Amino acid sequence: MVALRICFGGNSITNGTGDDEYLGWPGRLCAAERARGHDISHYNLGIRGDTSEMIEARWRDECAARLPDMHQGALVFSFGINDTAREADGRLRVEPGSSIASARRILAEAKAWKPTLMIGPTPILRESLTLSLNPGLPREVQDARIAAASSALAALCAELGVPYLDLFAALSADPRFAKSIAEGDGIHPTAPGYAVMADLIGRWPAWRKWFDG
Amino acid sequence: MVALRICFGGNSITNGTGDDEYLGWPGRLCAAERARGHDISHYNLGIRGDTSEMIEARWRDECAARLPDMHQGALVFSFGINDTAREADGRLRVEPGSSIASARRILAEAKAWKPTLMIGPTPILRESLTLSLNPGLPREVQDARIAAASSALAALCAELGVPYLDLFAALSADPRFAKSIAEGDGIHPTAPGYAVMADLIGRWPAWRKWFDG
Repeated sequence: MVALRICFGGNSITNGTGDDEYLGWPGRLCAAERARGHDISHYNLGIRGDTSEMIEARWRDECAARLPDMHQGALVFSFGINDTAREADGRLRVEPGSSIASARRILAEAKAWKPTLMIGPTPILRESLTLSLNPGLPREVQDARIAAASSALAALCAELGVPYLDLFAALSADPRFAKSIAEGDGIHPTAPGYAVMADLIGRWPAWRKWFDG
Repeated sequence: MVALRICFGGNSITNGTGDDEYLGWPGRLCAAERARGHDISHYNLGIRGDTSEMIEARWRDECAARLPDMHQGALVFSFGINDTAREADGRLRVEPGSSIASARRILAEAKAWKPTLMIGPTPILRESLTLSLNPGLPREVQDARIAAASSALAALCAELGVPYLDLFAALSADPRFAKSIAEGDGIHPTAPGYAVMADLIGRWPAWRKWFDG
């Protein structure tokens, strides 16, 4: 039996936005390990709309409050989609160079502190989509930019020695996930899509190593 | 249909510690409103072991990151039990005077910022219990001290005009809750106890007013 306190840092996909059951993938993932006999404390730190830079600004303070050194703690991050959103004025929310620099600072500091995993960004419904994520703030996201961000994160994680799960590739090929985001808002899955994500992450060897040794 | 982003600030009971389903009462409460057609974003900021003073130190930054003014936001707090825990050296973690002063600063600032509700602390299994919540740190908690904290919070909230739900009284008389904490660790309920809490809060007029107008 492993006792572990885990902080999940990320954006709306980590928060579980669109999930009628309010579990997201972190809740389902932790419930599955608990059913296997492990004792996980679960801190979901996903915030809707957060870019890498916004997560960089807050993750350490928020995780430090939740992971005192007297308990086994670990970190799981997932971000990147919001950086790639193009605003109405045509600018990206975070340019690729700044995005990966922010990811580098987060993941290097995290890895030096606690066991750390990185979950890549997820695909969206259509190649191009105009969304009103916030009033007065239309945003256009695009799978091609998310795919590029995922590749850059994979390379960064390989360099840093942080395990990286390429969800973009896996979920782009999964008809259950495509159906789920189509039933949702085109970006966020509904409950079945979050279940697909939790299943993929739960079978990922880097995650399993925390529990199966 | 009400669209609302809610931060739930508190300790392990807010976090949902001991719940096999990883929802706690906030997750169940939000899922019930979503089933009624409301669109709630749910940020669970409960941290195991946190006292009022620890919540005071972090709540505003954490909630500010989650509740941008362009969206409707609200705050629900629940804390107090950990303040009343007596350490091995005989001292309380937070003395009653400091505890209520901290609650006053939190709730006054919260109410001036966003709609705010306060949920009182919950009863424990036995009158006195020694727990190892943290390695090397036995803690003794006692219903009498929790009851006194709940009364002090009720008086404070009446003064500040913050709606207060006295869960201590309601749950002390509820055999389902007693059974749940007995099946848990004596302090934290299991899933059925969290469901009882969510049901009580969901029927509370101050909560219902956010949705039913």
